[in-house]
Amino acid sequence: MRDFLPADKARRERVLAVIRERYRAHGFDEIETPVMEEYARLHAGIGGDNEKLAFNVLKRGLDADAVRAAADDPAALTDLGLRYDLTVPLARFYASHRAELPAVFRAVQIAPVWRAERPQKGRYRQFVQCDIDIIGDATARAEAELIVATLDAVDALGLEGGSIRINDRRVLDWMLDAFGVDPGARPGVLITLDKLDKKGRAGVVEELADNGLDAAVVGRIDDYLGGLLTDRDGVESTSASIPLDIGAMREALPAAATPAPLDSLVAIAAAVAAARSGPLPLVFDPFLVRGMGYYTGTIFELAHPSVPYSLGGGGRYDGMIGRFLGTDVPAVGFSIGFERIADLVAGREDAASAAIVLVHDRDMPVAELVAIKAALVASGTRVRLEQRTKNLKALLERAAADGYTSFATVSAGADAAALEVRPLD
Amino acid sequence: MRDFLPADKARRERVLAVIRERYRAHGFDEIETPVMEEYARLHAGIGGDNEKLAFNVLKRGLDADAVRAAADDPAALTDLGLRYDLTVPLARFYASHRAELPAVFRAVQIAPVWRAERPQKGRYRQFVQCDIDIIGDATARAEAELIVATLDAVDALGLEGGSIRINDRRVLDWMLDAFGVDPGARPGVLITLDKLDKKGRAGVVEELADNGLDAAVVGRIDDYLGGLLTDRDGVESTSASIPLDIGAMREALPAAATPAPLDSLVAIAAAVAAARSGPLPLVFDPFLVRGMGYYTGTIFELAHPSVPYSLGGGGRYDGMIGRFLGTDVPAVGFSIGFERIADLVAGREDAASAAIVLVHDRDMPVAELVAIKAALVASGTRVRLEQRTKNLKALLERAAADGYTSFATVSAGADAAALEVRPLD
Repeated sequence: MRDFLPADKARRERVLAVIRERYRAHGFDEIETPVMEEYARLHAGIGGDNEKLAFNVLKRGLDADAVRAAADDPAALTDLGLRYDLTVPLARFYASHRAELPAVFRAVQIAPVWRAERPQKGRYRQFVQCDIDIIGDATARAEAELIVATLDAVDALGLEGGSIRINDRRVLDWMLDAFGVDPGARPGVLITLDKLDKKGRAGVVEELADNGLDAAVVGRIDDYLGGLLTDRDGVESTSASIPLDIGAMREALPAAATPAPLDSLVAIAAAVAAARSGPLPLVFDPFLVRGMGYYTGTIFELAHPSVPYSLGGGGRYDGMIGRFLGTDVPAVGFSIGFERIADLVAGREDAASAAIVLVHDRDMPVAELVAIKAALVASGTRVRLEQRTKNLKALLERAAADGYTSFATVSAGADAAALEVRPLD
Repeated sequence: MRDFLPADKARRERVLAVIRERYRAHGFDEIETPVMEEYARLHAGIGGDNEKLAFNVLKRGLDADAVRAAADDPAALTDLGLRYDLTVPLARFYASHRAELPAVFRAVQIAPVWRAERPQKGRYRQFVQCDIDIIGDATARAEAELIVATLDAVDALGLEGGSIRINDRRVLDWMLDAFGVDPGARPGVLITLDKLDKKGRAGVVEELADNGLDAAVVGRIDDYLGGLLTDRDGVESTSASIPLDIGAMREALPAAATPAPLDSLVAIAAAVAAARSGPLPLVFDPFLVRGMGYYTGTIFELAHPSVPYSLGGGGRYDGMIGRFLGTDVPAVGFSIGFERIADLVAGREDAASAAIVLVHDRDMPVAELVAIKAALVASGTRVRLEQRTKNLKALLERAAADGYTSFATVSAGADAAALEVRPLD
């Protein structure tokens, strides 16, 4: 868990303001839920491996007997936990407030989540997630709106050039059938395939064999991966980028695929193409998996040329929202990795905003000083007061680092309208 | 703990953006700390009664033996807790990062805190605090900057007319001495005096007597309160509003006061007067107490004519920041009651922002629909897509409630530039 000092915090808030504004323009409505949810709800099986990483909150008012009685049932010590994602809270929120929401509900959530991870570089125990979800729309309109809004937000942050890899869980299922993978072995095989970007073809094939998958099946997967990932020059990559064209997509698959999920991907691609100028920022990757077990259809991941890792992702999870509601509700979401994106966005402040440091003597009357400051603030300038020190240079350097652009010295009788303002640099 | 639906969330974010922008203009730098702090730090005595209300987080990986062993020492079950205020985290932050901060550090914190209160109207277990603090300035400049910035933020929210009641803990101490209160009885007497606005003069005097305060001392306090709180027409109020003029202040006090704290209050008032036009929004109230035990000097409270309760308050707490640092550091803070202020601010959206609902038929091609939406978004309009339903009226009413201002119907072949847009009302 981290403290954010002023420069970092200001940058994070600027990034959040841009994302918030763009998602709002695209018709998404922001909601907020409490950081704590009921223990039972956080451990209902929706959160996958993250459930084990939840921080649990001690029940209030436990006495020694109650603690002893709970020794063999740690769940009796806790009734609340900190959310480990924004999807479980969204499902609970939607079940509680459905009647007050539009039939198709487009939600934005920008909020911290907590996971008790072992400390390691780039992993935080508190981090911000930034999710958009569309609940109540089973058509490709939903995926297209999510993708267009996300790319627009990323563009607005100055990170033009983002692109999306897309697949459908039903394509994956169908492919594994075609390779001869037993339906019971499917989840394990998907977990291994999800490591393609880290382990490469040889590593994945080795892990499949180590996990006891039939050698003939492993061989078919290996052959297929070889063809899929090797380019004309014989160079092997770890992901496929197939044009979203029904002919090219069918050709890339191991056998004649069922058309429905492919048609859906083509419809999404056509809509994104119609909404954006320039080349289509969307490719088909038949081995894109995405970790969470709850995806039922489309899945996608956001890439950017400046970094080798994904900047976000999501997919369709039609079964899950209904679990707290008792009816089926279609849902699809896109989560951008706020922490990664905030690190990529340049730190610079809006150059148009004037910011001045007023350096004053110790004996400058407080009332005059505060009045000059107020007059400058009222004219649209950001103002910091600093009492003159022996090391004026260090004082001004610190102010420049904090985003101040100019300074002036003032003493008794100074006039706010006639300051001699000098640039800081 | 509450969910915030879109209209409430949008209003809260608008209020936060205004406050954030105003405080920034006044030279305050926003920081952020993790929501969890170490258990020991949250229970070091700084938090007063709030320490008992902390939500504590269960240690990870406890087995049954460890739980049993902790039965007689519940603190062994927990190592972290949710912060119950923003002052303890600020003290910890400053101790950790002092070398990276300006000599006089003006901090803004806008963040949720948690207290395990019994559920009751208007009390929440999770609520946002909005604090500004100046660390490292022992002069009246600090109080003046806090008060001017706070009144400016409140004005910018459309809540003009805010005013400040001000006092100094040293004045209170000196007065209690003058009444003959034993220094050991002082904290208890202050707790009772702090209830003046709820209990009135008679209630306070009764409680002082019930608590065993010497009858002669109670009589002197009663006599003094009678003179202080009764106006010319004989009507008694629960607070005093004495002009910040040294003569009037001395006259209002029970005997010839030591001048230092009064001079400091007059200097603060002069600076606020110089920085703001119109009548001085500041009065002296010698029986203003403020709850927290850590205040050492100036204390103040924000009032507004539209509500009978305080909208915020703060004071000087020179001893506290140094507790994690081992040296004395002057500090003064002003916390506005964000939840109360957010409830007062009108819900209306910026009227200048165009927002349109596009109603389309079921068979409208997704690509055309998403392209029209993108074109409108690019032109600066907020857009929601809605599939036409039998009850178009209900659909449009919901959209109007969500802040949309106009609508248009579209079908295949529609042109974004030639929509027939009609107002929603």
